[in-house]
Amino acid sequence: MTVHSFTPSHYFNLLATVPPVLTIAPGDSVQTSTVDAHGLDAHRQQVTPPGNPMTGPFWVEGAEPGDTLVVRLEAIVPNRTYGWGNALLAPNVVDPEYLAELPRPAKGQRSHWEVDVAAGTATLVEPAVSGGLVLPLAPMVGCFGVAPSGGEAISTATSGSHGGNMDYRGFRADTTVYFPVFAPGALFFLGDGHALQGAGEIVGTGIEISCDIRFQVDLQKGRRIRWPRGETTTQIFTAGNARPLDQALQQATTEMTRWLQEEYGMAPLHAQTLLGQVVDYEIGNVFDPAYTIVCKLDKRWLPR
Amino acid sequence: MTVHSFTPSHYFNLLATVPPVLTIAPGDSVQTSTVDAHGLDAHRQQVTPPGNPMTGPFWVEGAEPGDTLVVRLEAIVPNRTYGWGNALLAPNVVDPEYLAELPRPAKGQRSHWEVDVAAGTATLVEPAVSGGLVLPLAPMVGCFGVAPSGGEAISTATSGSHGGNMDYRGFRADTTVYFPVFAPGALFFLGDGHALQGAGEIVGTGIEISCDIRFQVDLQKGRRIRWPRGETTTQIFTAGNARPLDQALQQATTEMTRWLQEEYGMAPLHAQTLLGQVVDYEIGNVFDPAYTIVCKLDKRWLPR
Amino acid sequence: MTVHSFTPSHYFNLLATVPPVLTIAPGDSVQTSTVDAHGLDAHRQQVTPPGNPMTGPFWVEGAEPGDTLVVRLEAIVPNRTYGWGNALLAPNVVDPEYLAELPRPAKGQRSHWEVDVAAGTATLVEPAVSGGLVLPLAPMVGCFGVAPSGGEAISTATSGSHGGNMDYRGFRADTTVYFPVFAPGALFFLGDGHALQGAGEIVGTGIEISCDIRFQVDLQKGRRIRWPRGETTTQIFTAGNARPLDQALQQATTEMTRWLQEEYGMAPLHAQTLLGQVVDYEIGNVFDPAYTIVCKLDKRWLPR
Amino acid sequence: MTVHSFTPSHYFNLLATVPPVLTIAPGDSVQTSTVDAHGLDAHRQQVTPPGNPMTGPFWVEGAEPGDTLVVRLEAIVPNRTYGWGNALLAPNVVDPEYLAELPRPAKGQRSHWEVDVAAGTATLVEPAVSGGLVLPLAPMVGCFGVAPSGGEAISTATSGSHGGNMDYRGFRADTTVYFPVFAPGALFFLGDGHALQGAGEIVGTGIEISCDIRFQVDLQKGRRIRWPRGETTTQIFTAGNARPLDQALQQATTEMTRWLQEEYGMAPLHAQTLLGQVVDYEIGNVFDPAYTIVCKLDKRWLPR
Repeated sequence: MTVHSFTPSHYFNLLATVPPVLTIAPGDSVQTSTVDAHGLDAHRQQVTPPGNPMTGPFWVEGAEPGDTLVVRLEAIVPNRTYGWGNALLAPNVVDPEYLAELPRPAKGQRSHWEVDVAAGTATLVEPAVSGGLVLPLAPMVGCFGVAPSGGEAISTATSGSHGGNMDYRGFRADTTVYFPVFAPGALFFLGDGHALQGAGEIVGTGIEISCDIRFQVDLQKGRRIRWPRGETTTQIFTAGNARPLDQALQQATTEMTRWLQEEYGMAPLHAQTLLGQVVDYEIGNVFDPAYTIVCKLDKRWLPR
Repeated sequence: MTVHSFTPSHYFNLLATVPPVLTIAPGDSVQTSTVDAHGLDAHRQQVTPPGNPMTGPFWVEGAEPGDTLVVRLEAIVPNRTYGWGNALLAPNVVDPEYLAELPRPAKGQRSHWEVDVAAGTATLVEPAVSGGLVLPLAPMVGCFGVAPSGGEAISTATSGSHGGNMDYRGFRADTTVYFPVFAPGALFFLGDGHALQGAGEIVGTGIEISCDIRFQVDLQKGRRIRWPRGETTTQIFTAGNARPLDQALQQATTEMTRWLQEEYGMAPLHAQTLLGQVVDYEIGNVFDPAYTIVCKLDKRWLPR
Repeated sequence: MTVHSFTPSHYFNLLATVPPVLTIAPGDSVQTSTVDAHGLDAHRQQVTPPGNPMTGPFWVEGAEPGDTLVVRLEAIVPNRTYGWGNALLAPNVVDPEYLAELPRPAKGQRSHWEVDVAAGTATLVEPAVSGGLVLPLAPMVGCFGVAPSGGEAISTATSGSHGGNMDYRGFRADTTVYFPVFAPGALFFLGDGHALQGAGEIVGTGIEISCDIRFQVDLQKGRRIRWPRGETTTQIFTAGNARPLDQALQQATTEMTRWLQEEYGMAPLHAQTLLGQVVDYEIGNVFDPAYTIVCKLDKRWLPR
Repeated sequence: MTVHSFTPSHYFNLLATVPPVLTIAPGDSVQTSTVDAHGLDAHRQQVTPPGNPMTGPFWVEGAEPGDTLVVRLEAIVPNRTYGWGNALLAPNVVDPEYLAELPRPAKGQRSHWEVDVAAGTATLVEPAVSGGLVLPLAPMVGCFGVAPSGGEAISTATSGSHGGNMDYRGFRADTTVYFPVFAPGALFFLGDGHALQGAGEIVGTGIEISCDIRFQVDLQKGRRIRWPRGETTTQIFTAGNARPLDQALQQATTEMTRWLQEEYGMAPLHAQTLLGQVVDYEIGNVFDPAYTIVCKLDKRWLPR
């Protein structure tokens, strides 16, 4: 096993089949860094245009369409103290009639945060709020994935079966993520770190920050999945990416049902009866062009 | 404070302004029982037609439109051993294209469960599944609420601002629920107990069972809320009831944002910045005519 | 055949099983009047509280659950010159992000219109617009239907399988409408006349006006339909009522597909292949709690 | 003005910034041909892989991001007699509960049609239906548009602000279409001809056929539009492309409202009051990954 140390020199605002920046082998780890959603690096310098610039892509040796790429998120550590976000609810997450009652400040009103990795906190600097606000860090990757199918080049503003801007706070360290491989080499991208984020990303951002990230890749030859999947020590999960939420939920539920039958060997009635009484859902984001819903199952319900 | 013991003699399949079965005062508790969704009682006898028959309504002294009814769920205990549910995923929770791949058994395929309150378990009796299935009880109320506004009579199949068939597994013992009062006396109904249920109620049922339930009511004069709200020892929450999920989420998010500003005195920017980074959501049901999404906030973020 | 002349003395804001105002026989016609959505009559006097007050209900002799009520709209004639509407787009029909760019006048900004039945025109009086605005009349019924199933009492703000506030501009004179009968006597209500209305009712109103209306009823014993259907000289149509539009379209398409197979005897492949290439849709309303989509088929494609 | 005659030698299944096949000037016309959605040409030979292969792209001299490309569809003529389609309703256009009642034939059940341009008819060859089926031709372009913004490469299966697979039957001869220009040269693509199609494309296809097409381009420097727009002799229209239908309608309505204010100089109240009473909508498609709704306004309501 090799640990690659990779310093990006350029970034991509598309998930696409583009020349890789590094070739890695299944089992390898990569220690690298990501800029924030606006292209600001560890020194708060804008080094690339905004819009979720991606580090990568990494070419995974042997990966072919029809395989599954395994990405283990080993460490996600903010590498500066400055974080920022939006301060206002996105217009699409409240009742349309309520929007007229919400304050209408200058567009782009932001929040600014002081991030202290050692203390594990993000402290709100602006806007000033009564009593202050100190939140616990829970660093995550907002946007990551592989080159899409059919040669598509998809903006990092959105997501799909290839992953992308899912903005799900469960994509944190010690989570293993599975992506369908659509292009030779898989071409893995990552970026858009958040110091933390609420469910749904309902202000349209987490606490946006540049990060040092370490991940390990692996390859599952011939395992064909349809949507991103993931695993923690206690749960397995699937992610559906679409609008409206109803469709994202349908995708995630279908992928979970397939998984239980195709890979865990559950009979259809077993899988469905089980899910009906124990399934859980999380709303990843309800802001981006495609929303994300995650379908989760405790591992204790899986066959041994 | 009085504890009323009430044995229902008839049930309602509508939430509506109908003659109350008992008058109670704010502060009173009621010990009563509910039949299951099909109208089967503790002896598994069908005592009333199916469709979420309700116990009640209870007239709360002094309740007027514009007030808030407080219902503290003190105990929800299955009062028989037989539970039942659907075995198959509802057609609307999977990809439309996937439906053709799902088994298509006789309509109404059911699961049957043996419920052991002392052990805290529900054991799957049928269909037989490899390895068996024993789930931990988590009793909840599927359908409860008050007489709707404007004299409407709403089926217990669905839900709205008056509550109703929200099928949210968070409505369990030790939860306090707030309903807007729309009719004199509030007219509180409850029923449709589940021994447990997964998020979303994606098979269209929990483990359906008759229950002994104890609840306490209180009244908040002049507190005007728009949607059901709730509270546990650690969280406050709001429930939105609509299709699609997107609208239910908008309702719940709007109600939470109002709550923080109107009752906790948070400045608009404070409330929005906070929710953006710490809010959580749960999907109550994604099966009934109106879906339910719950917006949750940890109490530690509330002003002291 | 009898023509009843009926002058309403009271109105209902619910479609419900309430005492009928008149008993009529299949084949009878009724000449009556309706107040506008705010309860203003032909003299612009408020004679009943606002919210789509209904004239009726009319008890149709012999109507039983499982039958179909036939309503032929014979004449819909505004009976005063004053019409009113909303002047602003409803918040839910534009991009959420665009709402902040729209003018935000005092709530309830209205348009006022001078309606001239003889000339067949509605002339905008207020707000003043450059060049003025004169529109051709196309009178229609916004809200009509029967008592809902299961004893429900449903607000005239919304719609369902029983009809209700569908706000579809196709419900005009010379259209025949079919409603499923859910209660003995059917209990037919009507009101909420519009001098004219755009597709979708995207400002939340048509040009609201009181009307003189003449309709004829008939009864189809044992014909069981699931949603309102209709017929003009050239087309048959079905109406789905739900949110989001996607679900209303599913309902209307399903009802049309059933109709072609069950009553016109088309083979499944025939019905589907035909609809795929010749179906048409109209958006009734995209404003009310339930949206309405109408699925239409030219009669020339029906078997002779 | 020049009329170019262009015979394609290769096709694209993506709308993207790729090398143009021909450079044309504003005012020029192009006479060319398109293959059907499966890549079959005038001789029913498969000359390129399936999935809406596009003819083009055409580089329009002088086109820059921020301009508007004008495309006048001059002639769309099927160039063979063989047309095909799907025979079955798409699973997403009927009630999920109804799917189990629909026939479930071998996947990919097709309809086959004999197209007679001289007679103006399409005759159903298979499946055989009682009485036969002869439909009037109404040739249209299912998929056309420009290179998307930001270097995206978007599958011809879907649509967006750049156009694409809108499958709207109003895109026929004598219609003028406006596209926002996102890339230098605009890069105009077209293909996916239908001999005719129902609203919504609810079987997932029209009558698919290869065509000879003639179109003329023009350029409006500095006119910035956000969504495809169009014009016939009697109407102007805008197209929104998204899921669910609700969002597509919001986009189309917003674009129309902007148009009336920004280009026709209507006051906000004028534009909104007018649209409310006279707007019309058409459902382009309710099958593709993005649905299409068209918002239409009769030209007689435009200021002179």
